[in-house]
Amino acid sequence: MSTDLSADPLAILARARDEVTPALREAVARLDDTTRTISGYHLGWTDAAGVPTPGGARGKAVRPALALLSALAAGHDARAGLPGAVAVELVHNFSLVHDDLMDGDTERRHRATAWTVWGSANAILTGDALLALATEVLLESRSPHAGAAASLLAATTRDLIRGQALDLAFERRPAVSLAECREMAAGKTGALLATSAAIGALLTGGPGDLVDALAEFGAELGLAFQLIDDLLGIWGDPATTGKPVWSDLRSRKKTLPVTYAASRRDGTGRAVARWLRGTEALDEAGLRRVADLIEAAGGRAWAAEEASRRLAAAEHALDRVPIPGAPRADLLELARFIVTRTA
Amino acid sequence: MSTDLSADPLAILARARDEVTPALREAVARLDDTTRTISGYHLGWTDAAGVPTPGGARGKAVRPALALLSALAAGHDARAGLPGAVAVELVHNFSLVHDDLMDGDTERRHRATAWTVWGSANAILTGDALLALATEVLLESRSPHAGAAASLLAATTRDLIRGQALDLAFERRPAVSLAECREMAAGKTGALLATSAAIGALLTGGPGDLVDALAEFGAELGLAFQLIDDLLGIWGDPATTGKPVWSDLRSRKKTLPVTYAASRRDGTGRAVARWLRGTEALDEAGLRRVADLIEAAGGRAWAAEEASRRLAAAEHALDRVPIPGAPRADLLELARFIVTRTA
Repeated sequence: MSTDLSADPLAILARARDEVTPALREAVARLDDTTRTISGYHLGWTDAAGVPTPGGARGKAVRPALALLSALAAGHDARAGLPGAVAVELVHNFSLVHDDLMDGDTERRHRATAWTVWGSANAILTGDALLALATEVLLESRSPHAGAAASLLAATTRDLIRGQALDLAFERRPAVSLAECREMAAGKTGALLATSAAIGALLTGGPGDLVDALAEFGAELGLAFQLIDDLLGIWGDPATTGKPVWSDLRSRKKTLPVTYAASRRDGTGRAVARWLRGTEALDEAGLRRVADLIEAAGGRAWAAEEASRRLAAAEHALDRVPIPGAPRADLLELARFIVTRTA
Repeated sequence: MSTDLSADPLAILARARDEVTPALREAVARLDDTTRTISGYHLGWTDAAGVPTPGGARGKAVRPALALLSALAAGHDARAGLPGAVAVELVHNFSLVHDDLMDGDTERRHRATAWTVWGSANAILTGDALLALATEVLLESRSPHAGAAASLLAATTRDLIRGQALDLAFERRPAVSLAECREMAAGKTGALLATSAAIGALLTGGPGDLVDALAEFGAELGLAFQLIDDLLGIWGDPATTGKPVWSDLRSRKKTLPVTYAASRRDGTGRAVARWLRGTEALDEAGLRRVADLIEAAGGRAWAAEEASRRLAAAEHALDRVPIPGAPRADLLELARFIVTRTA
């Protein structure tokens, strides 16, 4: 991916996945039988019986792609960012395995989640193993900056946990402010995207202002990413997103568009806030009416506009630092793709 | 603890706890509200309402004591081992919080376990936070060997997880061999004690053969520690150990003395194996008869003798390297204490 200027986002992601998968497999191979098997399933490499699934349901590889482009942005080969790419993908998957269990989610990427197949205890253990493995892989890199990168990743994990703790706490509260909801999203999504975008430059000894600009790019992109995720969770096509239909509304998840809508002081806003405080289970038609209500209160339009503003802020962050043309184009293309994606 | 030669094990542990607690509190203070509160409770600093408990139920601080003595053994000040001491205590407590949940244990140190007070999701998150914090603290140490120490700790966490995965797998099996049970104990207990004993010397740039000898000392000590733990779980006084009476036998836990007894080919051994394969719930009298049966099959005596052999091997490991008199005496005293303790 070091010389290409075509900047097709799907090709960027596919190349990143091709680069990172062998290293990721090598890392996961070190784990004990149990957590290795479950990791292989969760990562889409095998089915629940352990049989390889060559065309299996993989993640989008957004974080590894950012980490590899980050090394290129610092003027180095993409491979110099590889330990960072593997590490951020491991931390991301640690959080998915644990979050699915904590949130009681039974499906991801059209498949049963790890805890539903192997039980809670084994899912806890698998997440733990992926988290420890991320540190191990990163510290094995030959970069003299590996310690700084691992330190950043550990602090990022703390931010991730802070975001998930807020998310869990929100479930027990009748209402949350938009500021609180943003803080949660900054922790749950922004922090790891920021670190993904910075880690390649950090590992290759890139200048501080470049590392900072890439981190800011990633943080803004993370908020845009979450806004789009929230929009797709309500108005997306379940066949494409891989999430059960209406699941976010069914669980009254306090996502960004919902929180925005509920914060409006007009009649529709108050109606959204009332539904959010309620407890009654709604059928499909009822959930569709709630979606319409959130849209009428401006939640859908605001979230789309806010995602565009975040994308602009992300692009702006890159303006102030020198970055070679090809990785700059790829970073921008990836950012635009994230905001226009439908899955 | 740098000049004392009195070598009273309880004093060694108390001094280690005094050294490590302020640094541990400083680290935990960085966490978000939820995981900080739960960590403070789990570590015995507060009650479930968040009220400080100055004389609260603390851990024995065996691992921090080993880490501080490890720095002294390399000829440095105990404080040079402090980031290592904090990190191993954090990893130990990460594993306790998650293991209590995975094992369904409701009591630890005479108190309700974290997951029973705050629920599974928050307990998962708290363990995650403690694990990430361990890496962070270690990498902040000014030692040029911090990266190597963090790398070792991450690999140790993988061993710990391997041990717990085996333990969980054993629950679903009618029998396990003594070799498998040793492997499990080496992972669950030996690995982190080995790293605790080595990490201070590693952080201070001690010679490789010293680091290796200390790690071997810790690994042997870990097996002795587990054997004594298993003995106390069956024949210890619940008022002292803080564990519910007969809990290990009630859950048919495949501990070392039980596995040894069940591996005997005589009548009592076969009776133990039969009980282990069974599923019927036993009352107190029945559990007492099982304990007597395990003792009659030689499980109790073998475990005590094996603990002594492991202690001797631990002592022997230290013989081959030069270590200043005071920390050598303290390490040996601590090792003997671990094998003769009653709680």
